[in-house]
Amino acid sequence: MTYRLYYWPGIQGRGEFVRLLLEEAGAAYIDVGNDEEAGGLEAVQALLAAPDAVHPPFAPPVLVSGKVVVAQVAAILQFLGPRLGLVACDANAALWTHQLQLTIADIVAEAHDTHHPVDGGDWYRNQKPEALRRARAFREARMPKFLGWFEQVLARNPKGPEHLVGARLSYADLSLFQLVEGLRYAFPRAMGGLERDIPGVIALAQRVAARPKVSAYLASPRRLPFNEEGIFRHYPELDG
Amino acid sequence: MTYRLYYWPGIQGRGEFVRLLLEEAGAAYIDVGNDEEAGGLEAVQALLAAPDAVHPPFAPPVLVSGKVVVAQVAAILQFLGPRLGLVACDANAALWTHQLQLTIADIVAEAHDTHHPVDGGDWYRNQKPEALRRARAFREARMPKFLGWFEQVLARNPKGPEHLVGARLSYADLSLFQLVEGLRYAFPRAMGGLERDIPGVIALAQRVAARPKVSAYLASPRRLPFNEEGIFRHYPELDG
Repeated sequence: MTYRLYYWPGIQGRGEFVRLLLEEAGAAYIDVGNDEEAGGLEAVQALLAAPDAVHPPFAPPVLVSGKVVVAQVAAILQFLGPRLGLVACDANAALWTHQLQLTIADIVAEAHDTHHPVDGGDWYRNQKPEALRRARAFREARMPKFLGWFEQVLARNPKGPEHLVGARLSYADLSLFQLVEGLRYAFPRAMGGLERDIPGVIALAQRVAARPKVSAYLASPRRLPFNEEGIFRHYPELDG
Repeated sequence: MTYRLYYWPGIQGRGEFVRLLLEEAGAAYIDVGNDEEAGGLEAVQALLAAPDAVHPPFAPPVLVSGKVVVAQVAAILQFLGPRLGLVACDANAALWTHQLQLTIADIVAEAHDTHHPVDGGDWYRNQKPEALRRARAFREARMPKFLGWFEQVLARNPKGPEHLVGARLSYADLSLFQLVEGLRYAFPRAMGGLERDIPGVIALAQRVAARPKVSAYLASPRRLPFNEEGIFRHYPELDG
């Protein structure tokens, strides 16, 4: 089974949460948007516009697995998790893992809106005063609230603070790593001030980064660098 | 089994998606926040602050079912759906239903941000110019895009446009009804202009409203009126 990931080329974006799971699992996949032989951007656009799709995706990322076509990051991870051994078998633990992922999706959307607070279809430069205000609220209220909650989740895990759920790695751990990396890129000053308050989260991110398959991926050309086209963007003025 | 729903009192908010499912299913539940005997607001706050919770909720709504405590609307509906017969048994159809619900969650978050575009912790009156701009982008670009997509999903359903998924009612249908009602309340002018383009969506909302249990619920005091404390708020200046 070779999975096909359809996502915009050139950025980590929301596709990165799917890539990290596929990489950690050692799964065979084609990153269509970044693979000219597979069709690149045009293939992504064709998938989105396919007039006969019974399950048309609203937006990328989209995962294609045989006849299954699934969009929405959290749904993709929930689909792949059990197939690739990156979620607990226990239904209650899997539900909790999904709830954590949905909360990561929420802060990711808020991180995006720091640079696009009033019009997702317009340029950042045309909404900069609004972005300054939204970014301040994000840094001062939302980042500490979300990250503090993940710290609490780790501290309360009956199996210890090594993982978000139980005693094994799950896709939620991989996603929390990506969230930390994204926030460090976009808001290095704000994260610098926060990290001492979330030692469990930071330690988890370090452990994820050190896993053999993840670290090989991070050192490979498949790991695109962060940039100012994705979700996590480093605009120094938004970092206080 | 009596379910317990924990949500802020006095508003429909995100809790309404859960209430609609419970009502259509005829399930026994206690709406704790609106039930003084059950503890009301203080009980909601106590649940959120419980120092020994192993699965602490990030935010309401929270559903408690025996030992299961689950937050995040989409996760709650995914948990309840199979138990209450409001999602298909087929795994692929259930995944598609969940994907639809996640997309509804996305537009609901965007609808909220029309009145709180730059600071969720500040008053609307303190972010009105920004709200005017975000609401315009929402009305002109986002509402047509999301609602047009749901129209397409209905038109492409191989079992016909009566339901979003297959030939039976699912929680996604109930949620789409609530989305339509909320947008009609908040943006009557914009929706008035859009409705002719989405006849399938409007017809589905009408059918949901006419279902015996839903219509009894809508006529009951349990259905709180929309107001300017919830997610869908009618500020005429934001309606163009």
